[in-house]
Amino acid sequence: MKIAILGGDGFVGWPTCLHLSNLGHDIHIVDNLSRRWIDTELGVQSLTPMDSIQERCRIWKEVTGRTLHFHLLNLATEYERVKQWFAEHRPDAVIHFAEQRAAPYSMKTDRHKVYTVDNNVGATHHVLAALVETGIDAHLIHLGTMGVYGYSSVGAPIPEGYLDVSIDTPAGPREQQILYPTRPGSVYHMTKSLDQILFQFYAQNDGLRITDLHQGIVWGTHTDQTRRHPQLVNRFDYDGDYGTVLNRFLIQAAIGYPLTVHGTGGQTRAFIHIQDSVRCIELALADAPKSGERVRIFNQMTETHRVRDLAQLVARLSGAKVAFLPNPRKEAEENDLIVRNDQFLALGLNPIRLEEGLLSEVVDVAKKFAHRIDRSRVPAVSAWTKEIAERVDRDPERQALRPAS
Amino acid sequence: MKIAILGGDGFVGWPTCLHLSNLGHDIHIVDNLSRRWIDTELGVQSLTPMDSIQERCRIWKEVTGRTLHFHLLNLATEYERVKQWFAEHRPDAVIHFAEQRAAPYSMKTDRHKVYTVDNNVGATHHVLAALVETGIDAHLIHLGTMGVYGYSSVGAPIPEGYLDVSIDTPAGPREQQILYPTRPGSVYHMTKSLDQILFQFYAQNDGLRITDLHQGIVWGTHTDQTRRHPQLVNRFDYDGDYGTVLNRFLIQAAIGYPLTVHGTGGQTRAFIHIQDSVRCIELALADAPKSGERVRIFNQMTETHRVRDLAQLVARLSGAKVAFLPNPRKEAEENDLIVRNDQFLALGLNPIRLEEGLLSEVVDVAKKFAHRIDRSRVPAVSAWTKEIAERVDRDPERQALRPAS
Repeated sequence: MKIAILGGDGFVGWPTCLHLSNLGHDIHIVDNLSRRWIDTELGVQSLTPMDSIQERCRIWKEVTGRTLHFHLLNLATEYERVKQWFAEHRPDAVIHFAEQRAAPYSMKTDRHKVYTVDNNVGATHHVLAALVETGIDAHLIHLGTMGVYGYSSVGAPIPEGYLDVSIDTPAGPREQQILYPTRPGSVYHMTKSLDQILFQFYAQNDGLRITDLHQGIVWGTHTDQTRRHPQLVNRFDYDGDYGTVLNRFLIQAAIGYPLTVHGTGGQTRAFIHIQDSVRCIELALADAPKSGERVRIFNQMTETHRVRDLAQLVARLSGAKVAFLPNPRKEAEENDLIVRNDQFLALGLNPIRLEEGLLSEVVDVAKKFAHRIDRSRVPAVSAWTKEIAERVDRDPERQALRPAS
Repeated sequence: MKIAILGGDGFVGWPTCLHLSNLGHDIHIVDNLSRRWIDTELGVQSLTPMDSIQERCRIWKEVTGRTLHFHLLNLATEYERVKQWFAEHRPDAVIHFAEQRAAPYSMKTDRHKVYTVDNNVGATHHVLAALVETGIDAHLIHLGTMGVYGYSSVGAPIPEGYLDVSIDTPAGPREQQILYPTRPGSVYHMTKSLDQILFQFYAQNDGLRITDLHQGIVWGTHTDQTRRHPQLVNRFDYDGDYGTVLNRFLIQAAIGYPLTVHGTGGQTRAFIHIQDSVRCIELALADAPKSGERVRIFNQMTETHRVRDLAQLVARLSGAKVAFLPNPRKEAEENDLIVRNDQFLALGLNPIRLEEGLLSEVVDVAKKFAHRIDRSRVPAVSAWTKEIAERVDRDPERQALRPAS
């Protein structure tokens, strides 16, 4: 199958490219390398030493004999080139990772809010419009997030995409199925909620075949394919903007920094290992909707945990201390989260358990590359509002952790 | 009150400026004049002879002694200038009309789809981000559309913005109030559905005070203020893209063209007179939500009609014939529509009835300016998909109506 992987140079994109190339698919990476530019902007780098995309593709060819095609293209700003690219390459499937994916980055300043909306809505809409215009009947798989729903569930399991509601009419109650209502908690999450509306429209009006994967927080670094050569290693972010909660705990443990829990740590989140993430994409690819069908939505996660429980787990494995800091985000202090993922389990997903995989992350990644860690980049500094920023800044515990400048 | 009217040169924007200026408010029109540029692109013009915005402002000053300030600014593409404008002018209220507002135009080609999304999402998000960044606590009133809900109601009245749903949980059913689910039927309507998500987020995260007016199809031309001088006249669109259904029937009647009903004409739509529209905005302005409140949503319409019934009504007033043509849109052939508008009625709206006001439109506008009508621009040509475009194009009745080229 000829597969376009949009954002194929990123954290989940790259291992997806290798996974699907290894299965024999013809892989075309389309990426504007914005994530590398953001590293430069923030003055951070992947913990794991990461080569250029061209070099990574060369190594993969050397190791496996398989070709990864790389195309430098800005999906969000170059619509005419996007359309031309699709007309020329006519992929059978399109996997769309090409969005700015960090909630804290999206809340940094007004410029970052504007960039995130322009980039994410632009990329998604341009791909949709180009598919319709070129008449390409490709299966579009999009990486969404569990976070579109916000985290104030009513205590019912979050279903996969749709909700049955009963509406009172003069003729009695009528059942209707609606998109599960979203309540995004950051500009980043909001863009994924906007994407849903775009998908609903283009599936309905133009019969586009779309699968939207509502992913949990991805943890872990290696997949079977990234392990095949040191230069195929995946990126690992630990900074306050792009490092997700578990990766940041691992790094903090490795350098003897306290594990920084925001607020009470009562936030419950959904998680999935990177190896399961690429496997889910493989499963979704094999299960394409038909034209005219509604958007297929999967919850792509395998377990849920409270943040403070994760901190305790990593503390137990590593001997690190836990520090409670004020929360720079505007969110519920404590929430429950029950998520259905029956669809992927039915398709054969056999999840990697966090308890089992965590130790190898500590040893193989965090400790191995600990000498590359810049301690000053570990704190999360993006606050959701200016008032929160000031409150967080005044906190004595936070000030004690600040590196001398 | 100092009021910024974004898109104040447009069809509803302009009479709103005059109405609120007449009430003594300090009006600042912010507009990039894109609607005039689109006239040029399409080779159409307002039926009513329309002066430049600068000249209109000068006449208003002459007639009333009141000043309308005009600022040429592209809200969708010049974020930094938008922020600067707000910082400098610090309005008490912002009324936001600055979106591409024609469904057929938004479906014309892929370029028009991309333009509509970029322009509408860009303008709305830039205004929201700028209000947060500058810390201005202005009441933001946005013109949305009834069309976000699609037109396949389950037979229940469309409530004002929110829906009570009951969700089954292990602990029994739990009541929750959600944004009334949207199902937009064109790219234009889709952008208004995206706006809703933007508003929900910024009201929740930043306490912005927002009112979203879900407007029906506006009919009529004159308001008390536009009548005060011939050069204050409002624009009147009759072309296949920007002319709304009732205005197009009036024009067709005036030039002896058949009243073109698409499909069975069983589509039921909501309507409101332009004078009531500006009055509703005045009422919404006086009823601002508090910071921290959810977005206040009004259905801004006064009556509903089936398209074929409207055609019969105009035919009866004018002696015109009715022609049934294939529908270029993808939509339900027949639908019911029951809409709640209790909130505006409670605030004192006293609606102008279509049956009463229609004749003056035929005489004062359509017949008066009939000599300016370009018959070739009357047919609706934008189709929702390429397949529909071909089917519409082959229709013999449609071909018979086509002007010799």
